[in-house]
Amino acid sequence: MSIVAVGSVAFDAIKTQYGKVDKILGGSATYFSLAASYFTQVRVVAVVGEDFTAEHEDVLKRRGICTQGIEHAKGQSFFWSGEYGENLNEAKTHRTDLNVFEKFQPRIPQEYRDSEFLFLANIDPVLQANVRGQMANARLVGGDTMNFWINGKRTELRETLKLIDVLLINDGEAKALAGESNLPRAANKVLAMGPKALVIKHGEYGATVFFRDKTFGIGHHPFRAPALPIEEVVDPTGAGDSFAGGFMGYLASQGELNREVFKRAMFYGGVMGSFAVERFGPERLTQLTREEIDARFQLFRELTHLD
Amino acid sequence: MSIVAVGSVAFDAIKTQYGKVDKILGGSATYFSLAASYFTQVRVVAVVGEDFTAEHEDVLKRRGICTQGIEHAKGQSFFWSGEYGENLNEAKTHRTDLNVFEKFQPRIPQEYRDSEFLFLANIDPVLQANVRGQMANARLVGGDTMNFWINGKRTELRETLKLIDVLLINDGEAKALAGESNLPRAANKVLAMGPKALVIKHGEYGATVFFRDKTFGIGHHPFRAPALPIEEVVDPTGAGDSFAGGFMGYLASQGELNREVFKRAMFYGGVMGSFAVERFGPERLTQLTREEIDARFQLFRELTHLD
Repeated sequence: MSIVAVGSVAFDAIKTQYGKVDKILGGSATYFSLAASYFTQVRVVAVVGEDFTAEHEDVLKRRGICTQGIEHAKGQSFFWSGEYGENLNEAKTHRTDLNVFEKFQPRIPQEYRDSEFLFLANIDPVLQANVRGQMANARLVGGDTMNFWINGKRTELRETLKLIDVLLINDGEAKALAGESNLPRAANKVLAMGPKALVIKHGEYGATVFFRDKTFGIGHHPFRAPALPIEEVVDPTGAGDSFAGGFMGYLASQGELNREVFKRAMFYGGVMGSFAVERFGPERLTQLTREEIDARFQLFRELTHLD
Repeated sequence: MSIVAVGSVAFDAIKTQYGKVDKILGGSATYFSLAASYFTQVRVVAVVGEDFTAEHEDVLKRRGICTQGIEHAKGQSFFWSGEYGENLNEAKTHRTDLNVFEKFQPRIPQEYRDSEFLFLANIDPVLQANVRGQMANARLVGGDTMNFWINGKRTELRETLKLIDVLLINDGEAKALAGESNLPRAANKVLAMGPKALVIKHGEYGATVFFRDKTFGIGHHPFRAPALPIEEVVDPTGAGDSFAGGFMGYLASQGELNREVFKRAMFYGGVMGSFAVERFGPERLTQLTREEIDARFQLFRELTHLD
């Protein structure tokens, strides 16, 4: 089944201890779409400026991603510049130029509206709700958010959370959203706001999915997937979006949404996140094979499974 | 097979958001011994003062722990007082009275010396090395340390690390010991200092064991065990020592030290840590059954395993 991804297609300048890059393709929808493209048909919705060329679009098209929903506007694309120190979970932002993204009003092409899966990357919750309205037939909606919206648009975000089936956020975001420092208690509070499932990403320690009672008829016991211990995290940018891409892409590729499918989706999320950080930008995600992905899935299994 | 545990038997005053206790039994050897006692015969070596009564000793004896190696000295027992805020990984210490522990010179009773397993809880690395010398026939030696020794007695600790087979420390300690912020790289540096295996405890995220190449003939791929998402952490004191007790106790209970045994030991470590935090002090560890322990082991498995 196909999935529609709505978010940013942007350019990034990134510095890490492994080097720096000046202006490379980035953005939440880019990472998400590339990661998900190994599992299912992806249709992207975003806005770009005149600096986004056919060459950039080909990076997505070569992965079979439908780019019809990318709006080309006058001006420059969203640009972010930042660097990572020893704490790879926190980037120091040097510059954020919203550019054409500032007036982004996502429009879902008619041809996309039969997609049963939808992913709302980290954008204004008001826009997320609007997109959800345009995709009335979506069977499962995934979403992301960040502290900027949790603190700045809490009321709007709370409305949007009622429209999201699976929310994917990190520890700090879950605690901020719930106003609660204990993680499983924070998870329960967030689930009470609307989502049927909540995936909390713990960075290098993996991720846990919490379920609302009776959600999907699969019980409410949490499930925890690992992250791979990685000696050389070249660039952590996009790891979270790549996790979401692997997770949602795998879900969309399966006929049924049962507990086992969710568990495997958690593993595939971790797998795609682990690939993303091996190179600057989304480079590694453009050149994988399904065999490499499944070999790493096997590594994740060996890392955590008793005989 | 039996295990000798050398560390502190002490009293603690603890405050958490769930309440406070004034002077209860604590100490690394206490938590370790109680946790390990569900798996194997434990023999404890420690020093206590006149405030340690027959009633306190019975807490250990009721679990079948041999207390012959507990030295009774004039004065008061080691006393620690502290509290935990929202960050359960870090206690705020109000008071540390070493008392009789200040002159602790561990002596291993002759009757203990046939034990094949030895655990050196977090004490002065010079004493740890001395104890190791008294247990020349030990087949496997586990050890703990802390930033106080890593920063204050680095040279002596480096010598002791050559005598330890399995080192159990947390993320911060591993990074401080290695002088390296990337965890798997830090692990490799610590393994190069002597230990054949390194267990790094990640608090609420579980723990990872790293192996030196060809150690125990079981390859060097790491293995990661979870921690249980716990809504009510009543008192985190002793969680690390209880992990070590479950881990080492299970190893000592097995005939062979293969990869599968190490993996299960990691799970049992997490299981005993999860019980320890459910009540103030070591109370929960005094009243478990092996059935409860194995039921929780099963929970840990379901939390992490694909079908």
